[in-house]
Amino acid sequence: MRMLYIVAIIVALAVSLTTDAQETSSLHLMPWPASVKSTPSSQPLLIQTSFSVGLGNASDPALRRTAEIFLNDLRRHTGSLPLDFQISNDPGNAQLKLKSEHPSKRIQELGEDESYTLEVTSSGAELNAPTTLGVMRGLQTFLQLVEIGPQGFAVPAVFIEDKPRFPWRGLMIDTGRHFMPVEVIERNLDGMAAVKMNVFHWHLSENQGFRVESKRFPKLQEMGSDGLFYTQEQVRDVIAYAHERGIRVIPEFDMPGHSTSWFVGYPDLASAPGPYSIERKWGVFDPAMDPTRESTYKFLDEFIGEMAKLFPDQFFHIGGDEVNGKQWDANPKIQEFMRAHSLKNNADLQAYFNTRVQKIVEKHGKTMEGWDEILRPDLPKSIVIQSWRGQQSLADAARQGYRGLLSSGYYLDLMGTAASHYAVDPFSDGAANLSDQEKQKILGGEACMWAEYVSPENVDSRIWPRTAAMAERFWSSQNVTDVNSMYARMDHTSKWLDAYGLTHNTNYVPMLERMTDGSNISGLRTLADVVEPVKGYAREGLATAEPTSLTPLNRVIDAARPESATGREFGDLVNRFLAGQIKPGMEIQIRSMLSSWRDSEVQLSASAQDSSLVREVMPLSHDLSMLGAAGLQALDYIDRGEKAPEAWKSQQLALAQRAIQPRAQLLLTVASPVQKLIQASAGDKPTELPFPKNASD
Amino acid sequence: MRMLYIVAIIVALAVSLTTDAQETSSLHLMPWPASVKSTPSSQPLLIQTSFSVGLGNASDPALRRTAEIFLNDLRRHTGSLPLDFQISNDPGNAQLKLKSEHPSKRIQELGEDESYTLEVTSSGAELNAPTTLGVMRGLQTFLQLVEIGPQGFAVPAVFIEDKPRFPWRGLMIDTGRHFMPVEVIERNLDGMAAVKMNVFHWHLSENQGFRVESKRFPKLQEMGSDGLFYTQEQVRDVIAYAHERGIRVIPEFDMPGHSTSWFVGYPDLASAPGPYSIERKWGVFDPAMDPTRESTYKFLDEFIGEMAKLFPDQFFHIGGDEVNGKQWDANPKIQEFMRAHSLKNNADLQAYFNTRVQKIVEKHGKTMEGWDEILRPDLPKSIVIQSWRGQQSLADAARQGYRGLLSSGYYLDLMGTAASHYAVDPFSDGAANLSDQEKQKILGGEACMWAEYVSPENVDSRIWPRTAAMAERFWSSQNVTDVNSMYARMDHTSKWLDAYGLTHNTNYVPMLERMTDGSNISGLRTLADVVEPVKGYAREGLATAEPTSLTPLNRVIDAARPESATGREFGDLVNRFLAGQIKPGMEIQIRSMLSSWRDSEVQLSASAQDSSLVREVMPLSHDLSMLGAAGLQALDYIDRGEKAPEAWKSQQLALAQRAIQPRAQLLLTVASPVQKLIQASAGDKPTELPFPKNASD
Repeated sequence: MRMLYIVAIIVALAVSLTTDAQETSSLHLMPWPASVKSTPSSQPLLIQTSFSVGLGNASDPALRRTAEIFLNDLRRHTGSLPLDFQISNDPGNAQLKLKSEHPSKRIQELGEDESYTLEVTSSGAELNAPTTLGVMRGLQTFLQLVEIGPQGFAVPAVFIEDKPRFPWRGLMIDTGRHFMPVEVIERNLDGMAAVKMNVFHWHLSENQGFRVESKRFPKLQEMGSDGLFYTQEQVRDVIAYAHERGIRVIPEFDMPGHSTSWFVGYPDLASAPGPYSIERKWGVFDPAMDPTRESTYKFLDEFIGEMAKLFPDQFFHIGGDEVNGKQWDANPKIQEFMRAHSLKNNADLQAYFNTRVQKIVEKHGKTMEGWDEILRPDLPKSIVIQSWRGQQSLADAARQGYRGLLSSGYYLDLMGTAASHYAVDPFSDGAANLSDQEKQKILGGEACMWAEYVSPENVDSRIWPRTAAMAERFWSSQNVTDVNSMYARMDHTSKWLDAYGLTHNTNYVPMLERMTDGSNISGLRTLADVVEPVKGYAREGLATAEPTSLTPLNRVIDAARPESATGREFGDLVNRFLAGQIKPGMEIQIRSMLSSWRDSEVQLSASAQDSSLVREVMPLSHDLSMLGAAGLQALDYIDRGEKAPEAWKSQQLALAQRAIQPRAQLLLTVASPVQKLIQASAGDKPTELPFPKNASD
Repeated sequence: MRMLYIVAIIVALAVSLTTDAQETSSLHLMPWPASVKSTPSSQPLLIQTSFSVGLGNASDPALRRTAEIFLNDLRRHTGSLPLDFQISNDPGNAQLKLKSEHPSKRIQELGEDESYTLEVTSSGAELNAPTTLGVMRGLQTFLQLVEIGPQGFAVPAVFIEDKPRFPWRGLMIDTGRHFMPVEVIERNLDGMAAVKMNVFHWHLSENQGFRVESKRFPKLQEMGSDGLFYTQEQVRDVIAYAHERGIRVIPEFDMPGHSTSWFVGYPDLASAPGPYSIERKWGVFDPAMDPTRESTYKFLDEFIGEMAKLFPDQFFHIGGDEVNGKQWDANPKIQEFMRAHSLKNNADLQAYFNTRVQKIVEKHGKTMEGWDEILRPDLPKSIVIQSWRGQQSLADAARQGYRGLLSSGYYLDLMGTAASHYAVDPFSDGAANLSDQEKQKILGGEACMWAEYVSPENVDSRIWPRTAAMAERFWSSQNVTDVNSMYARMDHTSKWLDAYGLTHNTNYVPMLERMTDGSNISGLRTLADVVEPVKGYAREGLATAEPTSLTPLNRVIDAARPESATGREFGDLVNRFLAGQIKPGMEIQIRSMLSSWRDSEVQLSASAQDSSLVREVMPLSHDLSMLGAAGLQALDYIDRGEKAPEAWKSQQLALAQRAIQPRAQLLLTVASPVQKLIQASAGDKPTELPFPKNASD
């Protein structure tokens, strides 16, 4: 009986301790608003079946559509049905009154006012904004305030004044390397709207695929996409869907490099003779457009003209990154052209190309955007630089009068922690010393989802919830930096986003079940919960066979989350425990986790024989079991007030050292906290293993 | 340390015992084929990136589309990507060769040959069928054979000969009471195809809503649907989607009753003057079409003519159930008409109506189908009776020469167990003594999803996985009745169906999280895992407020599964334990479950104060805790070989008696097995509580 009693304590404490962290903030708002005054003593506003939204003296017909979308979201978050909540024609009696002073622009513009004020009392709520765009942002705040209470779903009494810090808060999704169907895009637009992001940067062409229907040059999609492309009608649908949610859509057609897929149908565009085929491998490749032939610009003029009509946004992204120049070097005509035009090197040649393309983009009424490489003083100040190089690069551009946005530090495919992305600020480091006027040139930032290793099945789990942390960085005040608060609210937001059909949580178990043929996954899950994919660009270096766009993404690395919540929780517990901040039940919880790891190898080994996908993680499982046992032994020494023997310590530290080595391209997140327990048990000062943050490349 | 060691044993045993049950059948096929010869000693066929399907000398152009759909399904089940598997133009080298001797009908017909043979060896597979329809069925078998193995995904060597027992294997979804968007329909069509069902019966009109666009009578959907209807284009898309998967689509327009929504736009159709409004409540209502006016038949002629063109299937379902006759009784003109035509009662009047409607249906080239009530000797033998009354009703019809199908015993909304549905056979009970010729009149059966209490969010969890058991009843031989094997394969099929985007598993946790505002749900989940919604029509009787179509479906009853897998597992364990079939670890697993229940009340009470949706289940949580404690005490007595005192026994049996009472419209499934433990501990013979199976009404 005693044993069962203790089991019960473990279970009960597991609950109380995990909820604890979330109480750092009682409101689950993310991004955190500019000003929140909450009055917890007041009664909340109840969301009942009679709930209605009043549109006030709406000057913008789009406001009604905004209210409809809001009511549908509210239904999803409360489990209500489509016949309950109403848009009221009698705003006087509505529980939520919406007022926008001016309509938003028909085509959403950079820098439109997105501010709002929201007042909620027990008798009703008022949301006022200068524009309908501000109403949209305020409605997301209202939604995030909805929570189940003693009397049903309700919104606490608050007064919020809010506006964004940056006007450009983007997410880029690369649909070139792996195609993402429209439903993937749309559910991610819902997620973006939920965290007040306003730019969807649609990376549409790559060596591995050209993803938009061109009516003028149909061989682009016919020969360059394997049949996986968006029709123009689908593009228009996506743009409309985004527009209704206050999100601009910026297309990127990468040129002159990253463009093999164009050349399959149009080999004459390239700098070397064809034929070309769609690239299956990953990396930087030789094919590049020929910048010396007028026919290239004639093609681009017609193509950009067609796309400029299809995509209404002011900005047009031409990529411009990573040209290795090999085709240019090898082509005598191009070399001759360079000499004739005094172009000293390939960078000069690309600058010449960009200048020509910029004129074409401008001719079609658009403003050119590109990656760092495009920045050359001969381009007009109107262009926008997206920086993968960092704040210094942005600051240099700003000092020259160029606008820019930051993507360095925001690459989702590099598998960094939310905290690491959260710590990157467009105004920090190299940009910290800019004048206020120069700072205005920095428009914001974009999270980037490069798609070598994501499929429609797992892409959401790479984007969410970490992108919510970046959305807060771009929206909230620069001094909103409390990492514990961020994680508590991000964890809540992650579940909140389930309502939009995002699959970052729901696809996890089915992916693991597939690896065990549907049989019990508890052993596999115990392991998968504490591993993370290797960081940075390490995955390719550690591959046993060269990955291609045909390689299945069905392994543990593809299901494992970029950041292990269990690993983070365990690390926090150990740090607090060793710092003497010991709470009741804390040690039992640590022991419970350690013993579940110790035992997981036995559970998992049963399915290892039957599954190649399980077998490859068995070395990690073995080390996890060893770490579990080592951690328990360390706690025994600590509990007994006995110093662990040196020989034991050395042996266990060697184990921890081994355990941090990547296997199956995965990292064991709990090696470092276990090492601390071992060190502490031997009377040594606990140190962090150089892992996993520095295992980036 | 001892404690932790025992925790470890519990965890390890929980794994080994739950996998045990699934080994009753090593192949996860469902429905079970007519003949399976497996050769486990042979090497399996590996599914590699180079996998290709050869179409043989395809006489049916639809075969290529069938192969495309198959490859897409295969990708989903293996986590592969769209560029890998190919349809080969050189069938000689293909790993899977498909051959259909004849094309399927352009419009799928009742009774088309669906048989196939499938042979798999390590070097390749051949699937042969008389028709493409048979190929579709065989491909589902092939897919179900795919499992992860030591060398990756593979199909074991087998030889299968298969054909269905019944030609009509249907699922009805009621989209009248609660509208279901197209994506809900399509993912359920995927699920149907996976278990070889071939009829989607689309219940399209109800008192609460008219769900199809009529161009001839647009006020039907404009005024009768709250804007929630299918456009004709959507209907055509659904039909095409179903057709590609070998599924016929039969529309049902219920008449002359269940038709209030028609009268909102067309009050003259009714038997009493309008105006009418869409019904919000559930039940049988007075409004019915006026069978005495020629204008009614003129309307129906035009309407049925329009719908007969929209829905290509041979059969047209006119409902015909549950007319209470009150409007007819109260209308003097109708009474006069009945006298003038010698119609003695309302049944005669409805028969007159049906005869007229049948002629209209026939005129538009269709065969009429309806519920039991339509059967009257004056209707031609071509009509088909769908029986909600039972096998006797079907048998009576068959003896009169009418064809029929069984739905009695297959109502998903009544929350029965899979085993209870599985036990119902169209040829049993009243139909058992039919001659072989009469039996041919019984076409099969249909599972029915009536929609008072389902939303797009939880409807899948009412349909799946239980419908897979009925699909097996309709397809497999009548002697396939092993319930343990059925449950093992159904559990596997349930996870298998996740790949089609069905949400019966994935929506469970998010629905529970919504009830706790996203905080830790382990206590709530422990409870929700062992409760079931009340059975039969008990839900309405136990409602505290009259439910309507506006009532949110967001409570524990709406998330809880119709059949608790944990409850079933615990009941099995206790039965085996008390029967002396004790295995190592069995008692520890029973104790582990009991103690988790005992402790769940403490965990849950924390969120009870903060959530009205949790608060209502606290009485159940309390009883679950008491049952957990009682069960543990009973085991203590048994372990000590000591007879439990009478006083204690009476007290605990009273608790079990109380615990089976429904609260929050939920039943605690573990009360009965705990009672058995209590009885056994006191030396009494264990008895089953009359629960929950008999708590039906």
